[in-house]
Amino acid sequence: MMIIDCHGHYTTAPQPHNEFRQQQLAHIDDPSLPAPVAAAISDDQIRESIETNQLRLQQERGADLTIFSPRASAMAHHLGDAKVSEEWSRRCNDLIARVCELYPQNFAGVCQLPQSTGVSITNSIAELERCVNELGFIGCNLNPDPSGGHWNSKPLTHRDWYPFYEKMVELDIPAMIHVSATCNENFHSTGAHYINADTTAFMQFIQGDLFADFPDLRLIIPHGGGAVPYHWGRYRGLADMLKQPPLATHVMKNVYFDTCVYHQPGIDLLFEVINIENILFGSEMVGAVRGIDPETGHYFDDTRRYVESLNISAADKHKVFELNARHVYPRLDQALRARGL
Amino acid sequence: MMIIDCHGHYTTAPQPHNEFRQQQLAHIDDPSLPAPVAAAISDDQIRESIETNQLRLQQERGADLTIFSPRASAMAHHLGDAKVSEEWSRRCNDLIARVCELYPQNFAGVCQLPQSTGVSITNSIAELERCVNELGFIGCNLNPDPSGGHWNSKPLTHRDWYPFYEKMVELDIPAMIHVSATCNENFHSTGAHYINADTTAFMQFIQGDLFADFPDLRLIIPHGGGAVPYHWGRYRGLADMLKQPPLATHVMKNVYFDTCVYHQPGIDLLFEVINIENILFGSEMVGAVRGIDPETGHYFDDTRRYVESLNISAADKHKVFELNARHVYPRLDQALRARGL
Repeated sequence: MMIIDCHGHYTTAPQPHNEFRQQQLAHIDDPSLPAPVAAAISDDQIRESIETNQLRLQQERGADLTIFSPRASAMAHHLGDAKVSEEWSRRCNDLIARVCELYPQNFAGVCQLPQSTGVSITNSIAELERCVNELGFIGCNLNPDPSGGHWNSKPLTHRDWYPFYEKMVELDIPAMIHVSATCNENFHSTGAHYINADTTAFMQFIQGDLFADFPDLRLIIPHGGGAVPYHWGRYRGLADMLKQPPLATHVMKNVYFDTCVYHQPGIDLLFEVINIENILFGSEMVGAVRGIDPETGHYFDDTRRYVESLNISAADKHKVFELNARHVYPRLDQALRARGL
Repeated sequence: MMIIDCHGHYTTAPQPHNEFRQQQLAHIDDPSLPAPVAAAISDDQIRESIETNQLRLQQERGADLTIFSPRASAMAHHLGDAKVSEEWSRRCNDLIARVCELYPQNFAGVCQLPQSTGVSITNSIAELERCVNELGFIGCNLNPDPSGGHWNSKPLTHRDWYPFYEKMVELDIPAMIHVSATCNENFHSTGAHYINADTTAFMQFIQGDLFADFPDLRLIIPHGGGAVPYHWGRYRGLADMLKQPPLATHVMKNVYFDTCVYHQPGIDLLFEVINIENILFGSEMVGAVRGIDPETGHYFDDTRRYVESLNISAADKHKVFELNARHVYPRLDQALRARGL
C-alpha cells in the first residue's frame, strides 16, 4: 500500500521566490519602483528547501507521495490585477514543476490558478492547460473567493464557473476548493477563512444542482470538510428542508474531504459520518499548524497517526491512504501505473 | 433538575408582526408608500402561536424553560438605517416580553439589538437597558456582522465594541454571538453564515485579548461553536503558533457553546473535547432545521435526546441542562430562586 498525502503546499520555497513576490507587490503599490526581476533559483536551493522540510517529514511520517501545490495563503488573488496574478501563478507553478522533476517519486503537481477579483474564471483555463499538458500536473486549486474575504464572486454553482468545469472534465482532473489569505480583518486566514470557505462551498453544493450538470466533476473540500461533518445532521436536514435529494446522491458522488483535522476526536467523527470512499488522506504539511500537541507529544498535523488509530479495516485504510486518491486524480493513477505501482 | 433550553427564537410570531415588517421594508424601498402601521396583536394570537409550536414542543420534549429571543434571521440589521432597526427591534423585543409575561414559567427573554451597518454599537445600549431593566430580559443577541455577510465591522475584540461590553458587565448579562440573514448570495444563512460566524468569532477571541480586559464578560457561541470543536486541535495549535496562552485560560473562561448540533456523533465530539462547564443545553427550536431525521425517526433539533444518550454522570447532565445556564445568566438564576427553584 502506498500512502498518498493529497494536501501539501510549498510553504518553504527558496527566498528568491518570495523576494520576487515582494518586488512584484511593491511595484503594484508604487509603479515608479523597478519592475520585479526573476532571480535564478538553483536546483540545490530547491533541494535544500524540500529535503529539510516536506521530504524529511514525509519520510519521518512514512508517507510516499505528496500532491503538492504552491503555498495557498500566498496565492492572494486579491492583490494586483489579472496580469500580476498570471505572472505570479506561472512562477509558482513552474517551481512546483521543478520540485516534481527533482523528486518524481515523492511529489505530484497541483497548480495555482491566475484568478483575480472580478475577472472571469475563463482567464484561468490557459494556465490550467499549460500545467496539465506541459508540466504534467494532476489537479488544481480553485479559489471560491478571489477577493480574499469579501465574497463578491458568484457561488460555485453559478454558470460563471461552468467553462472552467468543462475544461476540468475534459482534462479529467479534480480541483481542491481552497481560498487564500484574507484581506478582511474579521477572518484569520487559516483559522477562520479557510474553514468558512469549506463550509460555504459545501452548502452551495446543497443549494445548487451543479453535479447534475457535471456528473464527472470531482471536488475536494479540504480541512476535513470545514464544519460539515460536525454538523452532518444539520446539512442532511437542510437538504431535506430545501427539497433537495439526499446528500449521498446530490453531493457526495462528486465531493471528497481530506483528513486535515488535527486531533483524534475530529478524525473519529469524520470517519463515523462520512463514507470511506469520500475521504482522502491529507496533512496540509508544512502548513497551518506546525507545532507539537502537548497532549500527545506529536505534531498536530501528523494526521497519519490519527488515521492509523482508527478501528477500520485494512481495506478501508487502503482506500483512504491510496485508492481514493488514485480514483480522484486519474492522471496520478496513470503515472503510478507507468511506474509499475 | 430543571431543563433550560438556552437557544430558542420566536420564529412563529403572529402574522401582523411580520406584516408590519413587510410594510416597514416596503416603505424603505419606496418612501411614497404609507409608513408602517403597527397592527394590534392580541394575547390570544400570541398564545396560539406559542402553544401550537414552542410550548408544545417544549412539553413534548420535556424541557422546562426556553431562553427566548426574536427570530434571528429576521433581525436583518443590514436593511434600512438605525431608526428602522430601532423601531423593528423594539417591536420584536416587546413581543418577546409579552410571551414571557403570558408564560413566565416557560420563557425568559433575550433581546435583539438595534444594530445597523456602520452605526456604533453604543447606539444599542439604550435598548439593552430598556429590555433588561424594564422588560426583565436576561441577555442579548449580539450580531458580529450587521452588514449581513459583508463583514465590514471591526472584529469583536476591537475597542469599538467595548462600551457595549462595559454595559453588559454592569448589567451582569451575557450575549449570544448570533448573526442574522445574509444578503451575500455566497452564504446560505443557516447553513453557512451562522456556522461561519461562530467559527470566526472564536478565532477572533484567540487572536485578541478581550477577556483580559473583560474578565467577567460571558459570551455564548451557538450552533455547538460552529466548526471549533471539530477542529479543536487546529485551534489549540493556532493559539500556540500565535504565542497566545492555552485556550483553557485565554478563551474558555468566558466562552460557552450550546448543543445545537443535530446528530449524535456531533454531540459526542462536543462533549469529548469541550469542558462540561462550557456547554449549555440548546435546541434552536423552532429554527433552522425543522424536519425529522429519517435515520432516527426523531426531529433533528430534538437535541435533548442526543445529550441524554451520552455516557456522562448525572451531575454533568445537571450542569448542561440547568446549572451552567444559571451561571451564565445570573438574572435567570435570581428569577428562578425568587420562585423557589
